[in-house]
Amino acid sequence: MTLLNSKPRVAFIGLGIMGNPMAGHLLSAGYPLTVYTRTHKRATELLERGATWADSPAAAAKVADVVFICVTDTPDVKSVILEEHGIINSARRGLIVVDHSTISPSATQAMAKALAEKGTHLLDAPVSGGDVGAKNASLSIMVGGERNAFEQVFPILQKMGKTITHTGPSGSGQLTKLVNQILVSVTNLAVCEALTLAKAGGLDLKKTIDAVAGGAAGSWQLNNLGPKMIAGDDAPGFMIDLQLKDLRLTLEAAEKAGVNLQAAGLVTRLFETAKDRGLGKAGTQALFHVVSQD
Amino acid sequence: MTLLNSKPRVAFIGLGIMGNPMAGHLLSAGYPLTVYTRTHKRATELLERGATWADSPAAAAKVADVVFICVTDTPDVKSVILEEHGIINSARRGLIVVDHSTISPSATQAMAKALAEKGTHLLDAPVSGGDVGAKNASLSIMVGGERNAFEQVFPILQKMGKTITHTGPSGSGQLTKLVNQILVSVTNLAVCEALTLAKAGGLDLKKTIDAVAGGAAGSWQLNNLGPKMIAGDDAPGFMIDLQLKDLRLTLEAAEKAGVNLQAAGLVTRLFETAKDRGLGKAGTQALFHVVSQD
Repeated sequence: MTLLNSKPRVAFIGLGIMGNPMAGHLLSAGYPLTVYTRTHKRATELLERGATWADSPAAAAKVADVVFICVTDTPDVKSVILEEHGIINSARRGLIVVDHSTISPSATQAMAKALAEKGTHLLDAPVSGGDVGAKNASLSIMVGGERNAFEQVFPILQKMGKTITHTGPSGSGQLTKLVNQILVSVTNLAVCEALTLAKAGGLDLKKTIDAVAGGAAGSWQLNNLGPKMIAGDDAPGFMIDLQLKDLRLTLEAAEKAGVNLQAAGLVTRLFETAKDRGLGKAGTQALFHVVSQD
Repeated sequence: MTLLNSKPRVAFIGLGIMGNPMAGHLLSAGYPLTVYTRTHKRATELLERGATWADSPAAAAKVADVVFICVTDTPDVKSVILEEHGIINSARRGLIVVDHSTISPSATQAMAKALAEKGTHLLDAPVSGGDVGAKNASLSIMVGGERNAFEQVFPILQKMGKTITHTGPSGSGQLTKLVNQILVSVTNLAVCEALTLAKAGGLDLKKTIDAVAGGAAGSWQLNNLGPKMIAGDDAPGFMIDLQLKDLRLTLEAAEKAGVNLQAAGLVTRLFETAKDRGLGKAGTQALFHVVSQD
């Protein structure tokens, strides 16, 4: 195993609500940082703090030992890695690419294979914990790909996340994230239906949560989204549009694996209804409006 | 408010897997205890410890200030309260009846009304926490009915439970329990579907739980039933037959309240499939066999 320098050169591609604070942590930790993002002005603060601008993913990868990607969907990652000015054009032996986006596990495996032909490792490393986790460097990071490459970037990942798990071969990080999204969304639906019955039956909703949250009914979703549902607070934590994107990836992966996930299918249809009602940019707790038909 | 004596006479009707240890706690706390249960030999240990046998619910209520009931379903409670040798025949001003069974909220309200005509209070006080909670006196108890009556029995309930909540008027304890059961069963389904995709995709299931349980995907069901699903351990905590009974009460209550709970409906159908496969006496984690089609 080739150990990276203690301060390898890093690049970060995609400076959105997640990528921006994550890249900031790398800069704070003293890693020489090059950035690229579609909307240049999103990089302003990082450039002022000492980051270097690159004009394309290929240009960023050229001057880095490790390239991090944090964009939205499968086509975005394909564009960053495979297209005309993509990373593949400056891919070389020893380069490690770490993709923090949540995308298709099978597309991940195909890109890992394409990069491997140039001696470059692709690690799929989707995160959970939202913008708060990104800001606090407390993300959970689920990493698929070769263990050797994982071990080399582990000290860098520790600057951005708290629970960092090597889940297995290429694609397994993405699959673990989709498993996570089944739990998150179906448990959210459980909370929506529970509070719907409580409300229709005239119960005091806050008292109801207090009475049940400490036992077998308890969950992060109940503790964190339940009070927002009661308050009618739709501000995102995690946006319905993104939850829907992840659920579509989940149902695709389930179909490929030959399993039928009925509850994941149901919650997907309900989130689609929420989107149709104009709630795509609302937090996932806004599903309560659809379930309770308020 | 008429305060009960510091050691009111108590009666306990229904000495099953829950009722037996609950009644035992009352005896240990020094309350004079009378018991009645359909199968006499279930009372043996309590009688040896000093409890008194009564030949019917009416006979038990006659010599008690507070009567506790812990049986299975709505018809059982109706039989204990309303039928020929039922409590109603010795109901009188000041008697308090506490029903720990999980039954229909509307049937509860009707029985409360019938008892109220004799000056007797009925409190609906379903519990969660299972046989372990009953043994450890750590049950959650959700109590509907008049606050005055609740306050009188509160010190006695503290001998059996830890989280004791007055949820509101008659029937609200039962409704809160049904809300609890939606959360428990739909979150269980979330865990089943998540582990089904993980298994089909070849993930290490234990590692998968460890990677996601600390975040927004976390729940009691994941922490407690997930490992049993992985191990193929179907031993009950909470039996599928009882979960199904509670889900039927839930769907009835939802229909009466005019709300449509699709996930609760789905998980009910899946538990029915489990029962059809001979898993009625298994723990609720055995739902994983149905969802993963193993």
